[in-house]
Amino acid sequence: MNFQDLVRRLDLSETQTSLGDSPALNPDVSGVAAIQQAQAGTVSFIESSAFAYWASEAEASVLILPQKLNLTEVALERGIAWIVTDNPRLLFARVLALFYQPWQPDPIIHPTAAIDSTVQVGMEVSIGAHAVIQAGVRLGDRVCIHANVVIYPGVEIGDRTVLHANCVIHERSAIGQDCVIHSGAVIGSEGFGFVPTAAGWVKMPQSGRVILEDGVEVGCNTTIDRPAVGETRIGAGTKIDNLVQVGHGCQIGRNCILVSQVGLAGAVELGDRVVLAGQVGVSEKIKVGTGAIATGKAGIIQDVAAGETVSGFPALPHKLWLRISVLMRRLPELFGKS
Amino acid sequence: MNFQDLVRRLDLSETQTSLGDSPALNPDVSGVAAIQQAQAGTVSFIESSAFAYWASEAEASVLILPQKLNLTEVALERGIAWIVTDNPRLLFARVLALFYQPWQPDPIIHPTAAIDSTVQVGMEVSIGAHAVIQAGVRLGDRVCIHANVVIYPGVEIGDRTVLHANCVIHERSAIGQDCVIHSGAVIGSEGFGFVPTAAGWVKMPQSGRVILEDGVEVGCNTTIDRPAVGETRIGAGTKIDNLVQVGHGCQIGRNCILVSQVGLAGAVELGDRVVLAGQVGVSEKIKVGTGAIATGKAGIIQDVAAGETVSGFPALPHKLWLRISVLMRRLPELFGKS
Amino acid sequence: MNFQDLVRRLDLSETQTSLGDSPALNPDVSGVAAIQQAQAGTVSFIESSAFAYWASEAEASVLILPQKLNLTEVALERGIAWIVTDNPRLLFARVLALFYQPWQPDPIIHPTAAIDSTVQVGMEVSIGAHAVIQAGVRLGDRVCIHANVVIYPGVEIGDRTVLHANCVIHERSAIGQDCVIHSGAVIGSEGFGFVPTAAGWVKMPQSGRVILEDGVEVGCNTTIDRPAVGETRIGAGTKIDNLVQVGHGCQIGRNCILVSQVGLAGAVELGDRVVLAGQVGVSEKIKVGTGAIATGKAGIIQDVAAGETVSGFPALPHKLWLRISVLMRRLPELFGKS
Repeated sequence: MNFQDLVRRLDLSETQTSLGDSPALNPDVSGVAAIQQAQAGTVSFIESSAFAYWASEAEASVLILPQKLNLTEVALERGIAWIVTDNPRLLFARVLALFYQPWQPDPIIHPTAAIDSTVQVGMEVSIGAHAVIQAGVRLGDRVCIHANVVIYPGVEIGDRTVLHANCVIHERSAIGQDCVIHSGAVIGSEGFGFVPTAAGWVKMPQSGRVILEDGVEVGCNTTIDRPAVGETRIGAGTKIDNLVQVGHGCQIGRNCILVSQVGLAGAVELGDRVVLAGQVGVSEKIKVGTGAIATGKAGIIQDVAAGETVSGFPALPHKLWLRISVLMRRLPELFGKS
Repeated sequence: MNFQDLVRRLDLSETQTSLGDSPALNPDVSGVAAIQQAQAGTVSFIESSAFAYWASEAEASVLILPQKLNLTEVALERGIAWIVTDNPRLLFARVLALFYQPWQPDPIIHPTAAIDSTVQVGMEVSIGAHAVIQAGVRLGDRVCIHANVVIYPGVEIGDRTVLHANCVIHERSAIGQDCVIHSGAVIGSEGFGFVPTAAGWVKMPQSGRVILEDGVEVGCNTTIDRPAVGETRIGAGTKIDNLVQVGHGCQIGRNCILVSQVGLAGAVELGDRVVLAGQVGVSEKIKVGTGAIATGKAGIIQDVAAGETVSGFPALPHKLWLRISVLMRRLPELFGKS
Repeated sequence: MNFQDLVRRLDLSETQTSLGDSPALNPDVSGVAAIQQAQAGTVSFIESSAFAYWASEAEASVLILPQKLNLTEVALERGIAWIVTDNPRLLFARVLALFYQPWQPDPIIHPTAAIDSTVQVGMEVSIGAHAVIQAGVRLGDRVCIHANVVIYPGVEIGDRTVLHANCVIHERSAIGQDCVIHSGAVIGSEGFGFVPTAAGWVKMPQSGRVILEDGVEVGCNTTIDRPAVGETRIGAGTKIDNLVQVGHGCQIGRNCILVSQVGLAGAVELGDRVVLAGQVGVSEKIKVGTGAIATGKAGIIQDVAAGETVSGFPALPHKLWLRISVLMRRLPELFGKS
């Protein structure tokens, strides 16, 4: 497609683009690229002033530029068509989606899939080779189940949800619409509950279930356990990265972000829009308020108030932790031993 | 069932229950619940004084109460039948097991399972769809192998052991009786052994094997490696949570607890009843004595004596670590910069 | 085989061995063992002076000894044949490889494998039961694909590469020659990219791909993500342990070592021969120079220069961190509160 087509398909006004100034500048575009690798024919973007100098360097044919920086003339002088927007990264995501969609198999049921006769299957469902679906499972419309997925009995899967290869969904889990479960993830397995006795650890049966609301993503090889009683719940729109552990009975709000290798012990409660960076750990029954942020490797052993940012272990307010980190580094000098 | 039935099925004496005082109080019970969600018809429990006020609030029909708290009259006044015991959580686990058992497939061998002709199969074994079992494997009685499990050659699996979907058991591993291997776990894979040379890393062949004694549980997506020579051994009754790494040649005692995301480097030795909380790491060849505890995120780089509790990184005695944590938080003030 | 056979098969000169001094000492050898478990008929090795006393204790029939220690006479007096070498561990690896090779299935294609008609298959390829290989995949010669592996469309796999059970290779990934992908690993899955908006997180499509150069190993349940655009690349000879996360767009050099549970955020760059010990975390876009080392649990949030060793969180030069660790432990005393 050419630049005019692109502008039309993105439903942009011409005044947001170089077409307003220079309608003749109408390059062909065939793909997207990061700004450092951009070449003729690609669309790229500049997110912030830190990348502003790339307007003079990048070889892209189209640049998405931030409203607040004055880069349109630089681009135009170099013969690069431009689009300005408040959120270049978001627009870049939309452009990318015009050129690329992840592979999705055809909506057929592979003859090698082992599907119990009581399974309810919606319209245009895809079920891959060697998938195994047990009794009483209900699959919504346009659900896509990749190869070698295993679904235990009584699971519900909402419309358009995608289950990637080799993930396992345990009994009675309920997964909403438009969710993505990545390869190797395990949803709804038994919580880690044992009662100490003189004769060893006695298992607490885990009779609860896991509920994923709409629009949740669960990363590769991530594990989400069901509780002894009640439910583990992941709020709508929450995105979970790879290798994360969500313990039994956790209650996670809407639109949270859990980065890779985060670990939540049992019965943790996160408000909405909580962001936990990589390798963060949260102790049992801790509450983290709406909009709170924990930076990488934080170890949260006390409740965190809404909106707070915490760091370190034990987790402290971020600014205090920064001051302490500086002082720790200076300890040899402060004690006269540098 | 009603309360009298419950008391009989749990084999309790009536004097331990409200039946001794109020035999007419005999509610129907149809399930269990956490104390906060308890409703009419459910059995719930109060574990300690921190939850004592729930005796005046909970809507349960039966409450399991701790011996040491005087809550039986409060319950009775509210028309709630009670049971007293030293260990309410343990009794709750037993009640839960009356109402709930995890799903287990019928003891049949699915026609799509690929089973080598030399495999020895015990009585009443269940083998799920698309499971793959290689040469020389021996399965005890009532073993349950879920769908898509892969077992490499020469593995032994003891009676009543359950292998959940998509786990992999590598060559020559020996798994005892009454073990549970959760979905996606990998047992007996090659240890991470490489020898540095000028031409790069040369692989040390990993000819050893992994042994799990009786009653071991291994969490989802946990990995337990085999060593170059000899064995990696997990003692009887030890419970391992999700996403744990057990390196090659580790020797783990009996009745240990390894919480999620714990990592043990090669040749670590744990005594009996060691408890490692979430995200703990232990360096190569470290010895941790019987009954020792490491709190979450501890990094153990020196041996830990039996019975000790350690915290932090590098791990220190827990009380010292608490004092240091307080002082660290006060560093800006102590150095006149608060 | 006997000792003379062993020396010949290892292509050693007799002067490197006791055959030069004592040609009559020619024990039979039938296996290998760690020095502590060595028995008659086994070959074992002593790596350094810390293990030197084992020359007087070990029950091995053959000992591999370090050049720099004078242990050959001790061995000979005890009737133990010896080999001296600069690198006993490396020679032990070679001996081990004479006695042990990991199980590899026959080069046949199992009839239950689901292989798209467009897949190109090299010579002597092994494909296990229930493996699923999608359109356009190309497999080199002597590739070994174990049971239940899933390969998405357009993947290339180089000669002699081994894919263990239940691993998943996502679309367009390119895996070199002589690689080993261990059980449950996921290569080429979608990077964790979301753009914040008022309406929640919008997915950044992940159109890139993952490239593993020759000789790479990827541990069990490790995850390596593909980026939005461009590639995630793992350099030749790099070895990655279990449960590691490699974020989208990382560029990892040659012959690196990533120990278990390491986590790399997006777009991290590692030079050649970087060693990251267990549970290390590295923040987004950080660069770690050639030959740098991070000790266990380090949290790297700033670039690390080539050759540096860093420790702790935030990561500091190792020696400084050691000094600080000592002072931290002494804080109660230094502030008069011990």
